[in-house]
Amino acid sequence: MKKPLTRDLRRCLGATSVLSELGDLRVYDCDGLTIEKRLPDAVVFPATTEQVAEVVRICSRHDAPIVARGAGTSLAGGCLPIGGGVVVMLTRMKRIIEVNVADRMALVEAGVLNLQLARALTGTGLHFAPDPSSQIACTIGGNVATNAGGPHTLKYGVTLNHVLGVEAVLGDGTVMQLGPLGDRAALDLTGVLVGSEGTLAIVTRVWIRLTPNPQDYRTLRVTFDSLDDASNAISDVIASGIVPAAMELMDQGILAAVDEAFQFGFPADAEAVVVIELDGPSVGLDEQRDRITEICNRHQAREILQASDAQQRALLWKCRKMAVGAVGRLSPSYCIQDGVVPRTKLPHIIRRITEISAKYSIRIVNVAHAGDGNIHPILLFDERDADQVQRALAAGKELLEDCIRCGGSVTAEHGIGIEKISLMESLFAPYDLKMMEKVRDAFNPGGGLGLGKVLPSPHAPTLLHAAVSIGDV
Amino acid sequence: MKKPLTRDLRRCLGATSVLSELGDLRVYDCDGLTIEKRLPDAVVFPATTEQVAEVVRICSRHDAPIVARGAGTSLAGGCLPIGGGVVVMLTRMKRIIEVNVADRMALVEAGVLNLQLARALTGTGLHFAPDPSSQIACTIGGNVATNAGGPHTLKYGVTLNHVLGVEAVLGDGTVMQLGPLGDRAALDLTGVLVGSEGTLAIVTRVWIRLTPNPQDYRTLRVTFDSLDDASNAISDVIASGIVPAAMELMDQGILAAVDEAFQFGFPADAEAVVVIELDGPSVGLDEQRDRITEICNRHQAREILQASDAQQRALLWKCRKMAVGAVGRLSPSYCIQDGVVPRTKLPHIIRRITEISAKYSIRIVNVAHAGDGNIHPILLFDERDADQVQRALAAGKELLEDCIRCGGSVTAEHGIGIEKISLMESLFAPYDLKMMEKVRDAFNPGGGLGLGKVLPSPHAPTLLHAAVSIGDV
Repeated sequence: MKKPLTRDLRRCLGATSVLSELGDLRVYDCDGLTIEKRLPDAVVFPATTEQVAEVVRICSRHDAPIVARGAGTSLAGGCLPIGGGVVVMLTRMKRIIEVNVADRMALVEAGVLNLQLARALTGTGLHFAPDPSSQIACTIGGNVATNAGGPHTLKYGVTLNHVLGVEAVLGDGTVMQLGPLGDRAALDLTGVLVGSEGTLAIVTRVWIRLTPNPQDYRTLRVTFDSLDDASNAISDVIASGIVPAAMELMDQGILAAVDEAFQFGFPADAEAVVVIELDGPSVGLDEQRDRITEICNRHQAREILQASDAQQRALLWKCRKMAVGAVGRLSPSYCIQDGVVPRTKLPHIIRRITEISAKYSIRIVNVAHAGDGNIHPILLFDERDADQVQRALAAGKELLEDCIRCGGSVTAEHGIGIEKISLMESLFAPYDLKMMEKVRDAFNPGGGLGLGKVLPSPHAPTLLHAAVSIGDV
Repeated sequence: MKKPLTRDLRRCLGATSVLSELGDLRVYDCDGLTIEKRLPDAVVFPATTEQVAEVVRICSRHDAPIVARGAGTSLAGGCLPIGGGVVVMLTRMKRIIEVNVADRMALVEAGVLNLQLARALTGTGLHFAPDPSSQIACTIGGNVATNAGGPHTLKYGVTLNHVLGVEAVLGDGTVMQLGPLGDRAALDLTGVLVGSEGTLAIVTRVWIRLTPNPQDYRTLRVTFDSLDDASNAISDVIASGIVPAAMELMDQGILAAVDEAFQFGFPADAEAVVVIELDGPSVGLDEQRDRITEICNRHQAREILQASDAQQRALLWKCRKMAVGAVGRLSPSYCIQDGVVPRTKLPHIIRRITEISAKYSIRIVNVAHAGDGNIHPILLFDERDADQVQRALAAGKELLEDCIRCGGSVTAEHGIGIEKISLMESLFAPYDLKMMEKVRDAFNPGGGLGLGKVLPSPHAPTLLHAAVSIGDV
């Protein structure tokens, strides 16, 4: 490995906080769902912001690229060390520094787990709203990097809406501190840092906006014989003016896998199940539920069940959140896509997925944060069959191009990472990309942070193989 | 005036769309509440984005600074032409291009009035949530420039939360188009453009997120004998977990002026009135109202009245929104401040305002978007008395420094403009300001757009006089 670099890193952090042996490095060469592997030259475990800053300065001197990494659950290659360099693990920075219940704010280090924060807030009546499916493992820093969503994004918005400020180490090793309320003045640098996937800075602390827990819930499982009916019902609920907390679609293919894994008792012959959650003050909920029931019945719902208690509600959510993991039962290889369309285009895009599946002879199963227009079709294939791989690639590409044509985007919450870089030029005009580059260069002049990620560049890898294997065709 | 510049502008826009006579220019030399005047060299009225872009290119060739202007209701000098140059009026660009009810989005030109949009949405069941007090006059472009708030910011958030994308002309005359859903990918340039007060670009079109109208309201007028009780009650409502749509404080001083203007019948001897609005599905509202009533009673509310119909509700809001205008009855000169503190610091900062008023012998009356921690103390003085001017200046400065010490900011919604530039260095570290400059330079390399605004620079005017007269000590 690169001796002088690791020597300097060890001098700064201590020997036990720097890994550079091949066997150790292999643990950090992939992300959440990837076969593609990229070995770093070193992995470091800073414990403080000042140590992160010092690492950035050392890497800058050695011209070594840097990738920040939390739990490694990214699905678009965001934490892969393109071109080697140093992986900066933020997992030792997991202190919850302050919880201010009265002002509904918290200050946490970037390595705090989403679930860890949820547990720490037990009894306060407050929570951090973003709840990605990787919630049990993912970090707040990762949520900020990808501007993460989740089922409850429908009502509560993405991570950006819940971040009041950040502390971040920029490309030259300087530490910037923004928020919690100061960002209402002048240029909103916090806003552009959220979702920048590590290409502007390494976020080390996050000022979080806490949300009051709803007083009560109504959680429905609605079964439809037809996928088309399901997506039309979702579209009509949105059009009715009701804002459910979440509205999640699972199709027949994924239901079979989930049911095998969790024995929830989903009907095997139904084309779709929609999980609809309402939350808020108790007294308003039954009326809203009745209106939703009426809309679903109008679209030939076969069955509408309400979770009878907290346990049943929790199980229903577990089924939804573990759905992607259960897909391993269906296929030797799979990739989970991430796209978004305006909500009225949901029935259209769901139909297109079926057509594209038939056209390329690639089986596709669906989960979706449907109320939000955010689709997650999962393409099933066998990566040992080169022809299947090519067809899966082409199917995924056609699907995302369809999202763009609908006025949507190629990612809603997983990010661009390394995989969707090739689609950036379909999504943005050349000048818009140039502006993003300029903004990146302002924060990260050498380009060492997040090298080769998000924006098209000579460093961006050509990723036919990776694109398939990490779920992104 | 500058002949070659105006000649080129006329060639581009036609003679009737360019003003350069002194008498005409005088109309555009001030903002919403200013005595300070700055004359532009020319005022232009483009009708299309392409014309705006051409104007920017012409000004760039002539090295003339540019200020974009909508309704001119800014309170911090944001639309004053510092250093002359060209005022780009966006008032001819007032087309509502698209209203997509099903997807809850609209595309409007920057010169569309906030109220014009509200009227155009009548019957759709949707609205644009930001409702600044200048709503009847201000433009959507101005709302975007200042990241405007309003009473309902408490529940619905600031303008940023309701903008899905923008079309904007950058410093080199290039047109950038972002959104409505594409901004979920890569760097959030829309996020940094919102609130940048014309220093990055001229926003020409805005993709708006529309919000479903609440099914019902409960609007309360709560009277307190003591200002301290009122601010403690507000703080406790927030802490209770209820999220009212709005919670507005008016103190005795302003109530007298408002009542004289509108004859609402506010009790003359009460120290404070709080207007609390709940909205949402009808069935939940009475319970929430009862909890709020209980909290207010615990803090010795003298009287709690509920608006009995839409007309009474409208009048109550009119009183609140016209309150600042009514202050003209109290004093020959006044300035309206804009600060924000964490919500639990509200009782503290309200007490501090009273202390500061006594310390400097400057009468201060208060309106506040109190539920949001956003204060608008109004300092009353006579500008013909130099000593009073100095004391008002010092009082305002002490007050804003107190906001910073509480973890708040020197502006919540009026912006930095030209007036609070001197406070930027108390609010942000030098490096953070440097980063803002770099981001500005990326969008606006020559610095011609919004010259002298927001960020400290040699162009930023020294504004002792202006600071007082336009309300910003």
